[in-house]
Amino acid sequence: MNVTLADNNYGKERVRLVKVERGAGGRHTLRDLTVSLRLTGEFTVAHVAGDNTEILPTDTMRNTVYGFAAEGPLGASEEFAARLAEHLLASGPEVTGARVAVEERPWRRLEVGGAAHPHAFEAAAERHTAEAWRGRDGGWTEGGLADLVLLKTSGSGFAGFRRDRWTTLRDTADRILATRLSAHWRYAVPAEGERIDYAGSHRVARQLLVDTFAAHRSRSLQHTLYAMAEAVLEGRPELTEIHLSLPNLHHVPFDVTPLGLPNRDEVFVALPEPHGLIEATVRRAGA
Amino acid sequence: MNVTLADNNYGKERVRLVKVERGAGGRHTLRDLTVSLRLTGEFTVAHVAGDNTEILPTDTMRNTVYGFAAEGPLGASEEFAARLAEHLLASGPEVTGARVAVEERPWRRLEVGGAAHPHAFEAAAERHTAEAWRGRDGGWTEGGLADLVLLKTSGSGFAGFRRDRWTTLRDTADRILATRLSAHWRYAVPAEGERIDYAGSHRVARQLLVDTFAAHRSRSLQHTLYAMAEAVLEGRPELTEIHLSLPNLHHVPFDVTPLGLPNRDEVFVALPEPHGLIEATVRRAGA
Amino acid sequence: MNVTLADNNYGKERVRLVKVERGAGGRHTLRDLTVSLRLTGEFTVAHVAGDNTEILPTDTMRNTVYGFAAEGPLGASEEFAARLAEHLLASGPEVTGARVAVEERPWRRLEVGGAAHPHAFEAAAERHTAEAWRGRDGGWTEGGLADLVLLKTSGSGFAGFRRDRWTTLRDTADRILATRLSAHWRYAVPAEGERIDYAGSHRVARQLLVDTFAAHRSRSLQHTLYAMAEAVLEGRPELTEIHLSLPNLHHVPFDVTPLGLPNRDEVFVALPEPHGLIEATVRRAGA
Amino acid sequence: MNVTLADNNYGKERVRLVKVERGAGGRHTLRDLTVSLRLTGEFTVAHVAGDNTEILPTDTMRNTVYGFAAEGPLGASEEFAARLAEHLLASGPEVTGARVAVEERPWRRLEVGGAAHPHAFEAAAERHTAEAWRGRDGGWTEGGLADLVLLKTSGSGFAGFRRDRWTTLRDTADRILATRLSAHWRYAVPAEGERIDYAGSHRVARQLLVDTFAAHRSRSLQHTLYAMAEAVLEGRPELTEIHLSLPNLHHVPFDVTPLGLPNRDEVFVALPEPHGLIEATVRRAGA
Repeated sequence: MNVTLADNNYGKERVRLVKVERGAGGRHTLRDLTVSLRLTGEFTVAHVAGDNTEILPTDTMRNTVYGFAAEGPLGASEEFAARLAEHLLASGPEVTGARVAVEERPWRRLEVGGAAHPHAFEAAAERHTAEAWRGRDGGWTEGGLADLVLLKTSGSGFAGFRRDRWTTLRDTADRILATRLSAHWRYAVPAEGERIDYAGSHRVARQLLVDTFAAHRSRSLQHTLYAMAEAVLEGRPELTEIHLSLPNLHHVPFDVTPLGLPNRDEVFVALPEPHGLIEATVRRAGA
Repeated sequence: MNVTLADNNYGKERVRLVKVERGAGGRHTLRDLTVSLRLTGEFTVAHVAGDNTEILPTDTMRNTVYGFAAEGPLGASEEFAARLAEHLLASGPEVTGARVAVEERPWRRLEVGGAAHPHAFEAAAERHTAEAWRGRDGGWTEGGLADLVLLKTSGSGFAGFRRDRWTTLRDTADRILATRLSAHWRYAVPAEGERIDYAGSHRVARQLLVDTFAAHRSRSLQHTLYAMAEAVLEGRPELTEIHLSLPNLHHVPFDVTPLGLPNRDEVFVALPEPHGLIEATVRRAGA
Repeated sequence: MNVTLADNNYGKERVRLVKVERGAGGRHTLRDLTVSLRLTGEFTVAHVAGDNTEILPTDTMRNTVYGFAAEGPLGASEEFAARLAEHLLASGPEVTGARVAVEERPWRRLEVGGAAHPHAFEAAAERHTAEAWRGRDGGWTEGGLADLVLLKTSGSGFAGFRRDRWTTLRDTADRILATRLSAHWRYAVPAEGERIDYAGSHRVARQLLVDTFAAHRSRSLQHTLYAMAEAVLEGRPELTEIHLSLPNLHHVPFDVTPLGLPNRDEVFVALPEPHGLIEATVRRAGA
Repeated sequence: MNVTLADNNYGKERVRLVKVERGAGGRHTLRDLTVSLRLTGEFTVAHVAGDNTEILPTDTMRNTVYGFAAEGPLGASEEFAARLAEHLLASGPEVTGARVAVEERPWRRLEVGGAAHPHAFEAAAERHTAEAWRGRDGGWTEGGLADLVLLKTSGSGFAGFRRDRWTTLRDTADRILATRLSAHWRYAVPAEGERIDYAGSHRVARQLLVDTFAAHRSRSLQHTLYAMAEAVLEGRPELTEIHLSLPNLHHVPFDVTPLGLPNRDEVFVALPEPHGLIEATVRRAGA
């Protein structure tokens, strides 16, 4: 029949890698990465004819993650993702692109007796993310974070919005603003011989996001999102753009007047759904 | 600073709508939809200056879902999504696109004493999905399904694949093939006055997917994916393309020889992660 | 210090077993079980002194599940659970009890061309559960089901309830009643030489639960729960008791009058939380 | 028919309460509680006859949570749970017991410019739990924590265990030990006029659990559990018992020798399932 294979990709999702680096004096370093890998390419004969000669098994992709981890230091998640993507891109002439995403769980060293413990750790809720894409004509590397849940009880309003016949929301000068922040930022291609300090970049970007969220006089979540993005691009010249995805996790006052009590704007219901969602990419001019 | 707002969108996620249509003779119809809505447009002043005059609240989008449901029949999820998208596109001059996704939970009428009950139902695991996008220059409507978990215990091999130094997988002529199928298919724009039978299209597309999964002599999941897609496009001329996303849910033999028992290819471990993932769009030529 | 070990238990959770039984003529049977196993006993020296001589590793428990599956037919999940529990109880003199829980996912044979396919299957959402406990002085075996989601749009009211100063709910003669049913029922110890038909018992018990849910004129979820339990005990004399756990999955009318539309009791919001929860055991007199 | 209602209970699950306490100088306090409430009692007529006169609606229980929150300070979660349980116990003569469980999400104040922010917060992954039961003849109050994920890369072995024909595990002197800790501890009934410092008790109990996990030379997870429990009871005389539930989250070495690399005990797979589970209550003698 007259059909053709259009966009396609394949790979392995959620390869769970834990690496212990055993340093001097019994001090261990713990890394915990979940790696997902995808290939795109000219795989028509595999699809149409069941000819697998061009198909690198996803089982091999999994092995490669563990093999790379065993061969040497991981480096930053951004570097590990980039190395895997470059390797996969080179795996065959039909491959036109490779994309590797890493979700790193940062473990904190336990404090025992006021000192950081050499080999005991506590997991954090927040994730550090990294993603690299490599194609025939170039590529990019991104860092980011996910599952950072923030809330402010003041400094946020929403007023003067468009109204139509379905609108019942009223203007508010003061509301709870809560979100589960996901962000990723893209690095400029480093100059020859230059090395990006991914960890430092991540640390500062995160702090700028948090500081701006707290300090901003918010007129909407869009308004705050843009201020947060702008702060990061201003503070980190090595970044060309940043994408933020901010759910608006609604907290609505519970009306206690039917219970014979006055409403004092203190008691709220946290709604699991529905939720708003605001997403945007902010880009450095000329990038 | 010299940064600009690039791609952006906002909306409401997971509006939970249940509608009961109370027919003649006490026979009720139950519809259960989770609706997500997104707007794209020229919203720079909202982001940069906190000026909300062009922002339709996501609370209004939620109200619109319930209002549309109260005003008249829902129609097929594809039609409901399309109507909402058209409405949102018209909500202001800055709006350049609107996208509405519906996840419908199909409830089955309970059988009691051999007869279909008029108002009692059982939920299905599988979801019926629909999505509509409307923009200044056109749009599209899609149907689909999600969370259909299929498994075959024979008729599936994987051999003759590419090998590199990280490959340890061996050829197999017979393995368990299991997947959690997600599919969506796009409809051609109907001719003037023509009406698409979305329910009929969905029913047949689903059956073709299932039949092909069962009957296909699979040489890889790519191979089966393509055969499934081809069968749907062949059987439903009103569709221009179909996208399939097929995780490969691995089942590996548990080696019982250390327990002093012979392996008979009967006992398997279902692995939750990692999993393979094969995705492709197959398109009718000329579409 | 003067502390003592009180109740304790240990074991393995979520052993994922898939077994393919390859019958005559290429007809395969597929079983999909998640098995959890627990031991109780006199394990004080293990806890206090770190002496493991009485500790059967949970890794061994896992192996036992696969080993038993490889040695012969599984039988009903109730029988498989009981056999494992008996085996574990006998694993050492310190063991005083063993409990094995099975969650079986029933796969339905796909229908292709009107006929049941010999080796291709579709997963169901509902679970078939089984649990066996064996102790020094006896034991019990239970069957059950989980994740059966039921809803009725008529035949359910809630009125005449207790009111206090915190009560705002009004009487209703007609509401949506929805639940995610979990049930387990206990079997009488079979007479010597007698064999229980677990599959038949399950099939009929399930049908009685569903039929009663649909047909009952419900004055509360407690009222319906009791009627369902009574129907099962009446219909299945081999059962001594049944436990039902019925969340009340609330569906509240969405008030469309602020949108200028009349409320017609057709449009509802499905609330994910909070939810009611009604639980009870109903027992045959003399059991 | 000759059946009777045995154990039964009902209530409301997952009431989501957020309370903002607006202190002097714009300093806000944020509390985030998920409350579940259950009643037990003589509710036979409700079940058998559908007579609701003794049934306090679960909707009222929800209102009570918000009403209590609006009337005055919450106090510690343990106190809030106890107050609600006492109130529910007194709600009618048929009520024989009331149990209230609270899961509190502790929000951390954001640090901005080195100072704690007055009204912006970050969510923690860990939960602070509290539970109170009140019955006709007494009751108890518990504190606890959940979802504290700990891991140590040294100081943990497992050897000298029982072996049977299904055992393949080998002795190990050094392994990764990881768990998702849940604990709850019970308070002695305070003397007349005495007030328990729940927050202080929680803080120290948590620190003792973490310190002991890190420092203990573990011969098994049972061994470590007991040491952790003992440390808490030793350090907090106001507690009579503690219950720990410790999943053993397995990390198994990935064998890289088939990839031509030496195993160095550095590269591990984190297995999501199955997992071990060790549970025990340790009690102060005489309690």
